[in-house]
Parts: sequence; structure tokens; C-alpha cells
Amino acid sequence: MSKKNSTDKLLIYALGGVGEIGKNMYVVQYGNDIVVVDAGLKFPEEEMLGIDVVIPDITHLLENREKVRGILVTHGHEDHIGGLPYVLKQLNVPIYATRLTTGLIENKLKEAGLLGDTKRILITADSEVQMGSIKATFFRTNHSIPDSVGVCLETPEGVVVHTGDFKFDHTPVNDQYADLQRMAEIGKRGVLALLSDSTNAERPGFTPSESNIGKEFEEIFRRAKQRVVVATFASNVHRVQQVINAAAETRRKMAVVGRSMVNVVTIASEMGYLDVPEGMIIEPEEVNKLPADRVVILSTGSQGEPMSALSRMARSTHRKVDILAGDTVIISATPIPGNEKYVGRTVDELMRLGAHVIYGPGSVSGVHVSGHGSQEELKLMLNLIRPQYFIPIHGEYRMLRHHALLGESVGIERENIFLCDIGDVVEFQNGTARKAGKIPSGNVLIDGLGVGDVGNIVLRDRKLLSQDGILVVVVTLSKQDGTILSGPDIISRGFVYVRESEGLLEEANRIVTGTLHKLMSDNVNEWASLKTNVKDALGRFLYEQTRRRPMILPIIMEV
Amino acid sequence: MSKKNSTDKLLIYALGGVGEIGKNMYVVQYGNDIVVVDAGLKFPEEEMLGIDVVIPDITHLLENREKVRGILVTHGHEDHIGGLPYVLKQLNVPIYATRLTTGLIENKLKEAGLLGDTKRILITADSEVQMGSIKATFFRTNHSIPDSVGVCLETPEGVVVHTGDFKFDHTPVNDQYADLQRMAEIGKRGVLALLSDSTNAERPGFTPSESNIGKEFEEIFRRAKQRVVVATFASNVHRVQQVINAAAETRRKMAVVGRSMVNVVTIASEMGYLDVPEGMIIEPEEVNKLPADRVVILSTGSQGEPMSALSRMARSTHRKVDILAGDTVIISATPIPGNEKYVGRTVDELMRLGAHVIYGPGSVSGVHVSGHGSQEELKLMLNLIRPQYFIPIHGEYRMLRHHALLGESVGIERENIFLCDIGDVVEFQNGTARKAGKIPSGNVLIDGLGVGDVGNIVLRDRKLLSQDGILVVVVTLSKQDGTILSGPDIISRGFVYVRESEGLLEEANRIVTGTLHKLMSDNVNEWASLKTNVKDALGRFLYEQTRRRPMILPIIMEV
Repeated sequence: MSKKNSTDKLLIYALGGVGEIGKNMYVVQYGNDIVVVDAGLKFPEEEMLGIDVVIPDITHLLENREKVRGILVTHGHEDHIGGLPYVLKQLNVPIYATRLTTGLIENKLKEAGLLGDTKRILITADSEVQMGSIKATFFRTNHSIPDSVGVCLETPEGVVVHTGDFKFDHTPVNDQYADLQRMAEIGKRGVLALLSDSTNAERPGFTPSESNIGKEFEEIFRRAKQRVVVATFASNVHRVQQVINAAAETRRKMAVVGRSMVNVVTIASEMGYLDVPEGMIIEPEEVNKLPADRVVILSTGSQGEPMSALSRMARSTHRKVDILAGDTVIISATPIPGNEKYVGRTVDELMRLGAHVIYGPGSVSGVHVSGHGSQEELKLMLNLIRPQYFIPIHGEYRMLRHHALLGESVGIERENIFLCDIGDVVEFQNGTARKAGKIPSGNVLIDGLGVGDVGNIVLRDRKLLSQDGILVVVVTLSKQDGTILSGPDIISRGFVYVRESEGLLEEANRIVTGTLHKLMSDNVNEWASLKTNVKDALGRFLYEQTRRRPMILPIIMEV
Repeated sequence: MSKKNSTDKLLIYALGGVGEIGKNMYVVQYGNDIVVVDAGLKFPEEEMLGIDVVIPDITHLLENREKVRGILVTHGHEDHIGGLPYVLKQLNVPIYATRLTTGLIENKLKEAGLLGDTKRILITADSEVQMGSIKATFFRTNHSIPDSVGVCLETPEGVVVHTGDFKFDHTPVNDQYADLQRMAEIGKRGVLALLSDSTNAERPGFTPSESNIGKEFEEIFRRAKQRVVVATFASNVHRVQQVINAAAETRRKMAVVGRSMVNVVTIASEMGYLDVPEGMIIEPEEVNKLPADRVVILSTGSQGEPMSALSRMARSTHRKVDILAGDTVIISATPIPGNEKYVGRTVDELMRLGAHVIYGPGSVSGVHVSGHGSQEELKLMLNLIRPQYFIPIHGEYRMLRHHALLGESVGIERENIFLCDIGDVVEFQNGTARKAGKIPSGNVLIDGLGVGDVGNIVLRDRKLLSQDGILVVVVTLSKQDGTILSGPDIISRGFVYVRESEGLLEEANRIVTGTLHKLMSDNVNEWASLKTNVKDALGRFLYEQTRRRPMILPIIMEV
């Protein structure tokens, strides 16, 4: 451990990932050394209209850019790597990641044109990385993607452990066991603070092993007299492997559909993370040439996303693959909160085509298990690491809170557990910790090519527009005497179906004309008050008539 | 049974409630007699932007208004009575309903100013109603609101049974047992067709008894050292009774918050459906005057609805009631698909205030059970009624499909089971049934005071506006020579944050000016092509720069 400077402090804070699911980004800072763990994205909340993705606000890192020693990446999921292209564009620092994670990151950087400029340092679970005064080591964990690691950061103030996303799978699909021995050893040597994954902190018991799914797949594949379609997350490489295994066992060929699925299968098999028998993969075009019981189709769309391959197959609008009556469709995933309706709709559409659909909570369907540990596993992690302080991470507030209670239940003092929001700084000095203010943090919204140019005003307008539409009122006045030269013309979009509401719009027109004439005769002729008066009069009239409040945009031209 | 005219047919169809959850409305027609069962509303789908509620399209009933003998209402839930004010405005027919149901309907009709004009006929489970050639009788069922009935319609072609919403609760809260004997008797006499509730057809086993909740409430109330808040559906009168009982047992007074909760508690207790001990109910203002462990607050907001009483308490913006650290909040409901996020957010906010929150699936939390029967109960109903034909109703397609399989499993022939969409007509003649075309049906969208004036074009515009906003381009041209007298002015709403995008909008302005000048010099001066050209040029430029496609509204004035 590096020498300790008695005035330096250890700071831990999250720029994303606490109080939310997604955009994970955690920071450990000692003196002038900042180490970042992960840089994820999250998908927009319902009220973020028109937004594509959300990334963390990294203002604080940019203001301290000379201190940032690099970004350690725990695994290759979007909520941990998806923010990298945006972050690296503004902050060019080295990336440390294991092999598969690096492969997935490089694919992203290539698309963003950042590959050449970014220093990538390959690590294994046995690497040691010195980042200024902080030494990083790693330990293997189980998660729904291979090559996942937890991080152990040795700082002069003490050891900080970040679990990454994890479960304890005692029969992992790829025989890569979680490194219990190393975790125990780290715990034995003494840990100041643990940051641990709270995703399933509300769930009692143990999360079942990924291997359970394989047996279920094989049985379903064997029973199915026609095609089998399996929809799952592209990034769940273990699940994909099990589809391949079951296909091999039941002598089926596999076609892959959906852009992200093709992407991941290509990268993972090229890198040796998928074991694909020779000749197993066929092109989607070849599906129709094979007997139906010799085919499995691996697809995106397990969340019912309207543009995904599965949804298109369900609506019979996929260019290459049709669902036929008697086909079997397995939805090997749990709907993320908010997606239940989309999944339900997809299931309905598939059933209408006559497909046999296997879906629903993993505990019922048998075709899905979570990649995150449940309460007993979280307690196991706490007892292996035995930290002095505990910061639950990776979860909505209620999950962090449940995790905190688990921490108390295994003997961590309540005052040693910190429930943090993004930006909250936990400061450690001379072995004691306290909350020490806030650094800037928040959501950066990405819409198309724009990063951060959509803020609350724009979102508020989109919300208003989406509710009752807009009316544009155009009128041209004479510069000389203020008489109406042209208009008022009222154009509406998203308000009412015009052909059925002619009378209403004609009356609206009279209201505007009347308001303008009245103002003229009162000698009111500043634009601002003309506009305000037109807006108010028209708004009042429309609300009385329709109980709606469309946005009203008066445009007054003078020539 | 009335005399049969050999050319008359029995028709059964749904105007709402199949392939969807909500707006239940089923029709049984024999010859010139139409009997309608229920007239509900549903809440808008996510893509129905700005819409308040959705009701069935009743065009077919209006076209046959002289045949409609009346509307039978099975129980007082919104998805069965909520459409009545809209339907009765266009179709003045008698309403038949039990006492509590009638009370809730009258409250609605009063608000809509329809009470005086509507004939209301009170029925009990023992009533017989002759509606032309069709005789209606009823049978008591268990559901999450008292006074629920199923309907038995004796037609010259045979008996049609409609279950309404039901479960089999062997220990009902109000001692009103489901009338198994009458159902068995109806089955014994022979039933042509059964229409049965499919809500929980995906769920194995039996739905637990409502009474289970009471014990759980009492235990929680007793343990709680401070206030208890219970959020549930206002219309779940049994649940409300159990809150009252537990409050009485633990010597707590009860305050009621939330408009619909106050409404239902008032109506149900005035009518004797709630047994409220003298002096138990206090005003919300009095909550703070009592010791915290002597109070329970009954609230709306169990779905996390942003404007509900519970959400406002959670955000500390409720005018009368605050949540204090140490209070207990019980969310006694399951989120309706689509509401999970709202409920999660409310739980987070309550926990941040330090409340102890009991929530989650009823099987885990112990504070909620469904009002609909699970698979074993659905099979029990099928076996009690033993119909020749079976039409699963009240559910999304996948639920109807599961229910159909349950029908097959108890011995109904597959070809005797009809999976219907709204508008599908099932025709019975001389003991055999077949699908016989479609009648008009669909969603009527209600936005403010407008009924049906928002259609696909308006919704498409709202969707576009919500994604990338709108740009209005205004320019005034001279009538004489086509020169630009004023503008172009570009006003944007919901597109970009203007102050950060000045350069972009200036460039856009130049593009429009350039396009117009070019057109002028080419002597193009019809409005339509000026507009199209401006729209295309600007759209192309903005997409290149931002990858967004705002709506563009060119307005060209001539003076």
C-alpha cells in the first residue's frame, strides 16, 4: 500500500447507478488520484419525450480531468459501457477491461470513431494496476455475461471493494466459478468499504443457476414439432450458449436475427466466448429451406420492443422470418418495469398467429433466471468481504434500502451504512467516514446527435404538445396604421380533427379578430401585449369549449 | 322460455372487453331484442397521447336503437359502469343493477346531468326481468366489490350465462357467499353458451380469500408505533371494510383522503355496505391532533398515480397529511401493467421520508389478493355451468387463449370454444354456433369534452410533436413581385434549447431564405410548392445536423 499523506482524504461517490437502474458510474478518489468504475447509459424515463439515451453528467470529472487515472470496466453490459463513447469524447483516459468486455467496448468505439484515440489496457482477474496512489486488483464473479469482475482498490486510507454485478452460481455455464477464495482473502485482510450490487435486494432466497435453463431449453426443443424461436438479451452470452447447446442436442440449425444479437454472437464467437459447432449457424434466408423441426431462431425483442426482430415477426412484418401456426416461441427474459405491456402485446400477437408461447416470470416459465444475486447471496458477499463501511449501489432507492437492512442483519452498524444519491460524497479520513457534501451530477439527455441540448424547457414543451397539440395563429398587421392586412389564420396540429371541428375553428378565428380590433381601438400596439391578449382570449375560449389546453403560438408580422 | 321463431337467430358479440382489459360491453341479441351487459371505460394506452378515457364504439347499438331493451350491469367497477354517461347520452335505455351498483351509477349520472332522464331498475340476485323474448335472472358471485352478480339469459335458442367478474371466496368478508347452488341448478338445466371472466386465466391454483388480508392488517396495525396509511382501490369496498375493522380492533381513528375514496366510502356507508363504528371517521385536519398510534389514513394512490393523495403525501405536497419518519404505509394492490414504475417511484419517495413501506406482489406482501378467480376457480365455474359452447371474455388475447385451454381441459370440444375480438359475431341457430361476420366496433377516444374528435391523424401529430417538437417558419411575401417583405422567422417549441442552438437556427434561416430566392428566380410561386420546398430543404438540413425530425410548419403570407 502506498504511503499515506495525513491531509489526504478518500472520497467515494456515484455519478450514476444509485437511486436508479442504469448509467452506472462510480468514483473512488484519493488525494489527486481519481479512479472511475464503469460508464453506463440508461434508457429514458417515460417523461423524457423523444430522448434516445441518458448518460451521467461528468462535469466534475472534466473539472478534475488531470486527476483521472482511468476507467475500470467491470463487464460488457450497456448500463456499464454504454456511456463510454460520450465520456471518452470529452475525457480521453485509458480504459481497463477484461477480454470480452474490451471486445464489446471496441465495437462501440469503432462506431463512434474513437478507437484510434483511446488507450485500452487488457486485464485479467489476476492483473494488478497501479493508478497513482491507488492499486486495483480484481476478482472473478458470476453474472449473465462472461468475463465479469469485481474490483478491489487499495488506497492509502484503506481497501475499497466494488462487486460489479454479481450472483453466486455454483454450476456456471462456462465453468468460470466466482472466486470465493480471493473474496475471502480480501475480506480477511480487512476492507474499509464495500460497494455492492442491490438489484435483487428485495428478493428473498438464492437466484437459481443459469444452468437450469439449459435443461429446460433442451426439453422444449425436443418436444417442439416445428420451429423454435428464442428471444433473449443479446448480451446474455451464457443464455445464447445454452440455446446453441440445446440446438446441437436436438439436431437443429440456428439462425440469428436482430442487429444487436448478430453483433454479440459475432464478437463472442470470434473471441472464443461462444462454442458454436461447425455449420450450426445458418442465414435467416435459409430457414424456409429446412424442415421446421430442424431449426431454431435466436432473436432480439425479449422486452417486446416495437422495432425488434421478435415484434416484427409477431406482426408478420419481418422481411425474412415468419411465425407459423404451431411454432414455439420462448421469451427468455423478465420484462423490465415499464415494458410489461409491450411484452404482453407481443405475446398476444404471437398467439394470434397460432404460436405456442412460453413466457412469464422465470419461476413459472422455467426459461429465465436473473443475473443478479438475491438476498442470501448479498449476505454471502457481505460476510465474505466483511467491510467496516457499506455503500449499497446499483439500484433504485427501495433496493438500496433493502440492501442496507441486509447489511444490518449481518452485523454492520447502521451508522456505517451510507445510502447515497448520485453526487453524494462519502469521505473517509483516519478510519472514519461521513457524508461530505455533493458534487455536480445528473442526467445528460441524448436526442439524435445532440448531447445535453434538450433540457427541462424542451421536455416541458414536448409534454404540452403531446397532450393537446398546438395552434399557430398568424396575422399580418400594417406598420402604418395597425390594420389587419392578412389573417388571422389558425393552423392546428394534434388538437382536433379539423374536418369535424370547422365551426370551432371559425369561432376561434372570430375571437382572435375581435380581440385584435378591441386592442387596436384601445391603442394597444406593443407586440408583447398583442400576443399575450390573443393567447389568453383564445386559450380561454378553447378551454371552455373543449376542456383542452393546446399550446397557442401567436405570430404577428408587420409589413 | 318464450316461443321460438324458427328464422330468428341468437347473436352474441362484444363491443369491448375481449383482446383488452377494460371497457367491458357484451351484447346478446335474439331476433329484435338486444340485451347489453355492462358499459365500461378503459384507460388510454401509452400511444393515445392526451386522451383521458376510452369507451366502446356503440354505432351498431345506435343503428338498432329500437331493439335495445336495456343494459344489465354486473357490478360497480369503472370498467363496467364508466362508459354509461357517454352511452346513455346517445342511447336512452333502462339500466338494471343491484343496490350498491345503482348507487355508484347514480353518482356518475348526477355528475353528467343524466339522472333525471335515465330509468333505473333495481334488481336483486332473485329478480327476474323480461326483456322482450329474453328473460334475465341473476346469481350472486364473489368479487372485490359487494353486490356483484352473474347473469343468466334465457333465450328461445337456449340459455346464455355471463359470469361478470368473479372469484370463489369461501370465507367472504361480508358473508355474502357466491350462490353455488343456483349456478349448479342453471348448469343442470342446460346451458347453451358461457361467457366467463378470463382475467387470471394465466394464474395456476386458487386466488386466496379476501379475509386473509384482515388478519394481516390487524397485525401490522398493532405492531405499528405510529400512523398507518393504507392505499387501495376506492372501489374495493371489502378491503376498506377490513381497514375499518383492523382500525377498530387496534383503537385507531380513520381519516379518508383522495376524492374517489371519499366518494365511495360516503356512498357505501350511507347505503349500509360499510359497517363504520360511531365516531371512527375523522377529518384529515384532525390527524395531527391525535397521537400517531391512534390513527389510520385510508388513501387513494395504490397505482402510484402522480396526482393521487398517496403520491402527494410521498412528495410532501399533500395539503393536509404528512408522512413522518417511522410511519407505516401499506400499498394494498398489485400494479396494473404499465404502472409498475409509478408505484416503484412512490415507494422510493415514501422510504426517503423514513416510512416503513409494505408493498409488492400479494403473495409476498400478504396485503393484497386479486378479486378474480385463478385457473382452478375458472374450471370450477366451467364445471358448474357445463355449457355446450364457451366464449372466454374479459381479458387480453393471451388470457382468453389460456382460458380456452382450461375449457378444453374440462372437456369442452375445441370447436365449441370461440375466441373473439370486439365486433366478432357468434351466431347460434338450431343448437349450432358459428362465427358470422363482424359488426362495427372500436375505441372511441375522449379528450376533455370531445368524444371521438381525436382520431389517428391527431394522435400521429401528437406523437410526432412529442418526439422532436415543432418548427414554425413564417414568411410574408409581396403579392406584386414575390419579394420577401418580412421573415423568414423560425419559432421552435420542443426541438432544441434555443439559447444553446443559436447558430443552428441562424443557419436554418439562411437555408429557408436561399430556398425561397432560388424558387423565385425559377419563377416557382404557387404556395403549395413553396411550402413543400421549404419543408424539404429545412428538414434535410436539420436531420443532417441533429438526426432529429421535428414537425415543420411553413406559413407563407402574401400582402
